[in-house]
Parts: sequence; C-alpha cells; structure tokens
Amino acid sequence: MDSFVFHSPTKILFGKYSIEKIGAEIKNYGVNKVLILFGGGSVKINGVYERTKKSLSDYGVADIEFWGIQPNPLVSKVREAISIAKDVENGIEGILAVGGGSVIDSAKAVGIGVKYQGDIWDIFEDVKKKPNKGLPVFTVLTISATASEMDIGAVLSNPEKKLKIGIQIGFPVISAIDPSVQFSLPWRQIMCGAVDSLSHLMEQYFSRPNESITSRQINLALQKSIIECVKKIKSNNEDYNARANFAWSVGQALFGFTKPGLSGDQNIHYIEHAMSAYNEKIAHGEGLAVISDAYYPILYKRGIASDQFEEWAQTVFGTNSVDEALKKFHDLYIFWETPLKLNDIQLNGNDIDAIVDIFDRQQKIKRPSAIWPLSKEDAKEILKAILKK
Amino acid sequence: MDSFVFHSPTKILFGKYSIEKIGAEIKNYGVNKVLILFGGGSVKINGVYERTKKSLSDYGVADIEFWGIQPNPLVSKVREAISIAKDVENGIEGILAVGGGSVIDSAKAVGIGVKYQGDIWDIFEDVKKKPNKGLPVFTVLTISATASEMDIGAVLSNPEKKLKIGIQIGFPVISAIDPSVQFSLPWRQIMCGAVDSLSHLMEQYFSRPNESITSRQINLALQKSIIECVKKIKSNNEDYNARANFAWSVGQALFGFTKPGLSGDQNIHYIEHAMSAYNEKIAHGEGLAVISDAYYPILYKRGIASDQFEEWAQTVFGTNSVDEALKKFHDLYIFWETPLKLNDIQLNGNDIDAIVDIFDRQQKIKRPSAIWPLSKEDAKEILKAILKK
Repeated sequence: MDSFVFHSPTKILFGKYSIEKIGAEIKNYGVNKVLILFGGGSVKINGVYERTKKSLSDYGVADIEFWGIQPNPLVSKVREAISIAKDVENGIEGILAVGGGSVIDSAKAVGIGVKYQGDIWDIFEDVKKKPNKGLPVFTVLTISATASEMDIGAVLSNPEKKLKIGIQIGFPVISAIDPSVQFSLPWRQIMCGAVDSLSHLMEQYFSRPNESITSRQINLALQKSIIECVKKIKSNNEDYNARANFAWSVGQALFGFTKPGLSGDQNIHYIEHAMSAYNEKIAHGEGLAVISDAYYPILYKRGIASDQFEEWAQTVFGTNSVDEALKKFHDLYIFWETPLKLNDIQLNGNDIDAIVDIFDRQQKIKRPSAIWPLSKEDAKEILKAILKK
Repeated sequence: MDSFVFHSPTKILFGKYSIEKIGAEIKNYGVNKVLILFGGGSVKINGVYERTKKSLSDYGVADIEFWGIQPNPLVSKVREAISIAKDVENGIEGILAVGGGSVIDSAKAVGIGVKYQGDIWDIFEDVKKKPNKGLPVFTVLTISATASEMDIGAVLSNPEKKLKIGIQIGFPVISAIDPSVQFSLPWRQIMCGAVDSLSHLMEQYFSRPNESITSRQINLALQKSIIECVKKIKSNNEDYNARANFAWSVGQALFGFTKPGLSGDQNIHYIEHAMSAYNEKIAHGEGLAVISDAYYPILYKRGIASDQFEEWAQTVFGTNSVDEALKKFHDLYIFWETPLKLNDIQLNGNDIDAIVDIFDRQQKIKRPSAIWPLSKEDAKEILKAILKK
C-alpha cells in the first residue's frame, strides 16, 4: 500500500437546518463580511437565497453579492470577482459560495486570487506555482455532484486558450449541506451528479495495484450506496433519506477518503475535460457518461485490472461475469437516462481530432494518473468506440 | 437520516517513513518545544523512540520526556504531566504522544489541562464543563486500536473514585502512522485492537433507525476489511499491506466517518468501562470480546434491529441465517483467540453486582446512546449470560 497524507479539514454542517447555521459559523470564524458568489438564480426559487441572507444578517455578517457563475466556470468571471474582493473599500474577509461545484470552484479560486500577486490563471496552467493561503471559503451547497464542498480541488475553463484545468487549490473551511434543497432539481442535474461521483469512484477503484483492501471496500460500498439512492430518488423525488444519503455518498466519493493507497485512473475525466474545453455546452456528467460506457469494456478487453473487474462485478452488480456486469452498468446508465452517443451531446465524428488534440495538450500540462497511459491513438480509439454505438 | 456535524481535521501522515516527517510538521505548525508522553518502553525496542527523537532534533524541536503512561490511563499521571507542561520555565508549546490509545488520550487531557484552571478530572466527570482550546497535540502511533490518533475522544480512569469515563476533548493536529512499527506487537495486543475497532463498528451499525444507507454500507465494508486484514496478519506477522490496511481501517472505524446518521449503541463499551473501572488489569479489547459474544445473541433474540442483523449476516458473513452469522462471529473470536468467559479475564459471578453498580453510576454521569436502553437488571442479565458459557 502506497504512503499517503490524509487531510480533510472542512467542517460539514449536514441536515435540514444547516443553512440557518452558516451565519453563526462564519461570524464565529472571525469573518465579518463576505463576497457571496451565486450561479444563475435558482437559489431565488428554492429558498436558499433568502435562508442564507437571513442567517448572515441574523449573526451580523455583511455581504456583497456577485452573480452569474456558469457551469464549466470561466476564469474571466473569477477575475471579475477577485477585483471586487481585492478592493480594500469593500472590506471582504471571506468568500461564500452558494451553489454547486462551479460556484464553489470559482469561490476557491477567488479566495486564493485575492492574495495572489499575478493572474489567477497562472496557478492553473503552471503546476509549479503553488498558491499561498487565501481568504477563507465557506459554502452553502445546492447540488451534490463534484464534492467541491469538502475537497481541495477546483476546475476552471479558459475559452481563449481552449483549456479546462483542475488543480488542488484549497479546502472550504465550513460547508452547509441541506439535502432538502435538492428536491427541486431537474432529473438531468441529479443524473449528472450521480454520473460524476460514480465515475470518480470507478476511476479510483480501477487502479494499480490492488493492495488497498480498505479503500477498495469503502469505494465499492459507496458505489452501491449511490446506485441505491439514485434509484430511490428516481421513484420519489422528495425522499429525504435517499437525498441525504446521496448527498453524503457523493461527498465521500471525492473528498479524499476513498483515495488512500489507490493510485487512481483519471483517463475518463481527462478526456471529458478535453471534450468540454472543446464545447463548453457539454455538461460534465453527460460527457463522463458517454466516455465511461465506451471506456470500461475496452479497458477490460485489454486485460487491464482484471482482478478489480471481477470483484467489482460481484460486489456492485452481484454477478461473477464481468461481461454481465458491464452490461448491467450500461443498463444502469440507460435507466438513469444518460446520453450514450456522441450526437446525444451534439458532437460527431468530425470533432474527434480536435478533442484529441486538446486532450494531448492538457496531458502535457498535467499528466493524469492512469492505469492505462493513453497515447493520442488510444484516446482516438475510445472516442471512435463511442461513434460505433 | 439524522442531521450531523462532521469534522475531522487531523492531518494524517501515513506510511513507512511518516515518523521521519513529524519533526518538520511540528516545527511548521509553529511549535518549538514539546512534552513527549511515552508508555512503558517498547518504543526503545522497536526503534520508534530513536526515529522520533531524531526527527525532532533534525528540525530543531526541543523536548522534555515524560514516561510511564499505563493501559487504562490514570488521571494521576495526567496531573503530573500537566504540572510539568504548565511550568513556564519548561517552555512547552505542544504535547507529543508516542504510543497507543492510552498515551494519546493522556496527551489530549494534558493539552487541555495546561490551559484549564481547575482539576482536569472535573471536565471528565461534569459534562457541562466544556474545555477551552489547549496546547496542540501531535501523535506518533505505535498500535492501531482506539483511533485516538484521529478522533476527538479521550478516556481516563480514576481509581480513587472507581470511575472510567470517556469524553469528547479534542483532535490531534497531526498524527504519524507507520504501520511497519506494529510488526513487533504481540498477538494479544493486535487482537485487542481488532476487537476494539470491530466492536465500535458493530455498536455503530446496530443502531436505530436503519436510514443511513451510506454509513451502513461503509461500516460493513470496514468490518469486512478488518476481518480480512487480521486473518492475513495472523498468518504473516510482517505482511505490510495487511498491517497498513488494518491500521487505516481501525482509524476509519472510529474517527467519525462511520457515524453520520447512525445513532449508535454504546452498551458494550459502557459495560466494559465499568468492568475495567472495577478491575483496571482488564484489557479493554478483552473485556469487549467477552461482552460482545454474549450481547449480540441476546439483542437478536429480543427482536431488536432485526433488519440490520439480516444485512450484517449477508454482507459480513455471507449467509442469510442470522443464527449462523452469530455462530461465525463467535468462531471468529475463537480464531482471534479472544477471551470469552468471565474467568478468562479474572472475574467471576461474585463480581457481577459490583460491576453493575459502577455501570449504573457511570450511566448517570453520562447516558450512553443505546438501541436497547439498559436497566441494572438488563446489565446483570448480560453479565450472567457470560457466566453460563
């Protein structure tokens, strides 16, 4: 088992009245004024906006609002928010993200950017540039998908450079997760979160070498838990327990707990980042679904990670046949109503070369951990396999 | 699913050369001199003493040594250490525990005690007394058993009062876990750690109500992992991967990760605390083994937590029959060579009333979370069931 450092300092307030506690927690942390980052406005419909603002004002935390963070968040918006937070007259002492992964990732970059001398994108493109400590980041989560509410990472897009890059940037200090605010999410968003977290788990699980009994067992437990929860949510959108367990599983799937001793395989995420850098309209979860469905049968046919495939088939899908498990995995995605073909996500065969080129450029900036180190030809093979479906 | 706060801020350095890093980490945290707490001296045989001291001196961290913390650690030793750490001339800025759960628990109490005005025992006996922040605590772990290296708890014994009480006192800041130092442990100590962690998992698992899909699945995964690792360690004492996975599973079993949404059942631990408050020579793990083996068949016969018993039987022991699973659990303890009868741990029927009295007094100080709230008569029934074996 490989050596590792495990550190997961984010304090999680979890449950139905957790948003009501965020003001007191921020004040108690010594922060008197925050810049709040929001997405497109759904928080004004589901009550999260009012509840958050009330909690802040109840405990005397002042704020400035910053709206308009999009999915596949842009470095340009982050730069705008940094300049507001940097302005001494505004007196910003912390960043509060109210939203999903895109808003939280942006908040982390803003927190670091306020204390960073140069342009924030430098830190993303140059792995040698280690960020110093930034302003503290707090979050109120509105959708469980990326686990950014309790992990160290952030992903930003830079359309001018056709790049989408994820780095380890810093943990939120405190996150409030009220699963009941997710009742109103449309199915497509739930599905994207489910695919993202299952994808992360599978990428960590299919990993060299197979020595990490504990992480492997926990990983499989979380895969089962996510599949069980999503099934319950699909049949009853307002099943609080299913929502709560889903939110908690998704958080666990990424916050570092399932990684110790597993080298992990980031191929699927890297191909997807190339896809959505090429076309920023592609939802991360949808891109992952399309790639995963093609990737795992190829990985298995190449004889890579055979032992893991057998254990995975037995534990997650209750069968001794890996082929049957791969079929059940495919059927699961049909049940989840994920896209499975390139043209389901507005791509076609003519886009493959350009995507592979971005994949290759991004790999050169930051090499993925991979059980199967992909050449450009390998990446093309995977994308072409999607075409054939 | 119940609401919860999850916070697990301890930074874990895990692996073969983790002890070598502790000096740099302590220095980096801003601490220049530590009081080191040790147990009986095994660290001078397994190399941990020299490695720790070298790491401290390599990074310019000065120290004072304090020896002689025993299993079932005494508040009297903690008071001694507090007076040394409080002495301004000694310049102590942090506490470093080098040992197992007893040493770490004592270190946590010393860290708090240095900043506390009254007697440290007050905090243990009066739940209303909340400790303020103390000196930072660092640990170098020598035996995986209580998970004190990454959890918030500490248990101290007060023989004058015939009390043994555990409280939530504070997390270590940084813990170094090198599983290879555990190669030299005698089987009895490994067994005690295995029983302690499995016992904690089972107490959390058999919990009202059965809503926490995620925590339940992770809990069962860790039970399986511990059973698999212990089997490997028993057949090869120097199997590093088994040691490493065991150490990591044991840490997870207690640090709070398996608790979210589970109410837990602390009956077995509370009875054991009464037992070893009555006779401090009883090893915690041995007491737990004797009680567990009697407790679960009674719990099942009373019709409590039937659903959980079925899932547990299937997942951990691969059988649909709970009776068969209970038999396999009993056989596991025989395989682990745990004591199973009262006289295996130097007790007999005449001791039962006194133990029940302590159990009752301790319950009144701090009520356990229990799926089956025990009266004195219930506690007596459980202890008498052990007699009949």
